[in-house]
Amino acid sequence: MNGKVWLVGAGPGDPDLLTLKAVKALNQAEVVMIDDLVNPAVLEHCPNARMIRVGKRGGCRSTPQAFIHRLMLRYARQGKCVARLKGGDPCIFGRGGEEADWLAERGIESELVNGITAGLAGATNCGIPLTLRGISRGVTLVTAHTQDDSTLNWQALAQSGTTLVIYMGVAKLADIHAGLLEGGMPSAMPVAMIENASLPHQRECRSTLGHMQADATAFELKSPAILVIGEVAATPAAIQMAQSA
Amino acid sequence: MNGKVWLVGAGPGDPDLLTLKAVKALNQAEVVMIDDLVNPAVLEHCPNARMIRVGKRGGCRSTPQAFIHRLMLRYARQGKCVARLKGGDPCIFGRGGEEADWLAERGIESELVNGITAGLAGATNCGIPLTLRGISRGVTLVTAHTQDDSTLNWQALAQSGTTLVIYMGVAKLADIHAGLLEGGMPSAMPVAMIENASLPHQRECRSTLGHMQADATAFELKSPAILVIGEVAATPAAIQMAQSA
Repeated sequence: MNGKVWLVGAGPGDPDLLTLKAVKALNQAEVVMIDDLVNPAVLEHCPNARMIRVGKRGGCRSTPQAFIHRLMLRYARQGKCVARLKGGDPCIFGRGGEEADWLAERGIESELVNGITAGLAGATNCGIPLTLRGISRGVTLVTAHTQDDSTLNWQALAQSGTTLVIYMGVAKLADIHAGLLEGGMPSAMPVAMIENASLPHQRECRSTLGHMQADATAFELKSPAILVIGEVAATPAAIQMAQSA
Repeated sequence: MNGKVWLVGAGPGDPDLLTLKAVKALNQAEVVMIDDLVNPAVLEHCPNARMIRVGKRGGCRSTPQAFIHRLMLRYARQGKCVARLKGGDPCIFGRGGEEADWLAERGIESELVNGITAGLAGATNCGIPLTLRGISRGVTLVTAHTQDDSTLNWQALAQSGTTLVIYMGVAKLADIHAGLLEGGMPSAMPVAMIENASLPHQRECRSTLGHMQADATAFELKSPAILVIGEVAATPAAIQMAQSA
């Protein structure tokens, strides 16, 4: 009889941001496959499971997705309960949907377990609400990194009026800056750049669209980092001025 | 000495989607103020706290925000540890930022605790990943409801290329349909309409932009519900066809 694969969001880093459902899945797991960007502190919930690191930080410079698929399949076919731990949420830049479909095609049951995504936790830790009445009616999460070199519609994103949360953007600051300016976003639009979201060593750099490249360099901003672009990324005092204006 | 206010995301409904941090805050709380859309099942984590319902479902048709503010302040000044429980996440359509700022201005310490937002959990429960390589590089969460009758830039949202997750949209289906069509979104764009996200009685209706109004009526879709609009909202079989095309 086949086992089951839990595709689990490990959250943004702070182990307290794990959900109860994730903890229960880890408790049951006999094999845990750990992705990049997962804080090893969450592994306290599965002390007896076999651990397999499948991320870049684990030594394999980039474990091929096909290998990860085969590994999940092998253990599930052995009847094992497998937890596949991913940073943040498995359905937001996490390939959880792909892996669930791939397993389903092979008759393996899986279940997705949501997690807090890094952009949300990083902003919250800086005191930035992603939406704010009268200021921002929505939020857009995008990744600046792709394998296919496709470009995002930065102009539409600039005009959407939503707070932008950009993942994997450190190497793409010039493109982001040019695209958003072209879309009509003012150069004075507030930006927060957040490194190590939700962890004790989280660092934040407040800037503006116009100055973010220079400020990121001076700050020595390192990947992975989150960019929050929008009125809500101003300091609290600046937001209050805007609200009362 | 003043107490502290925890502004806690209670998640989308499934009590297992509460974070460990939220559970710890509830354990400590002496007073719990419970908002609309919070599943009472999460209150098992604070059996001895004083409970105050401040949402529409609690009998008060709409507890004024000013009254909620004063109540938090009163208990915090009594030195009490207060947990303010909100559906989903306090910083995504949750007013968490406003309440934290208001308390800070009065010298009261508060801490925001993230939660899983209903749009994410509802989509995940339907097997819909909000992002998917080659299909969707991002996701936009917006609310269709406002107090100020301002309109969203539906055209920019249609052109953003991100998956759209719309909260409070049941009464605004006609506006959403017209705005997205005007922005160039094809009438065949897949739509999933999800009621009672993440709860055992979650219901889903798959449709398209062109048919969503008629389908919602036939389905008797009730508020609150989540709309997921984008290629990822197709059935898994339809997504696989698109990926292999």
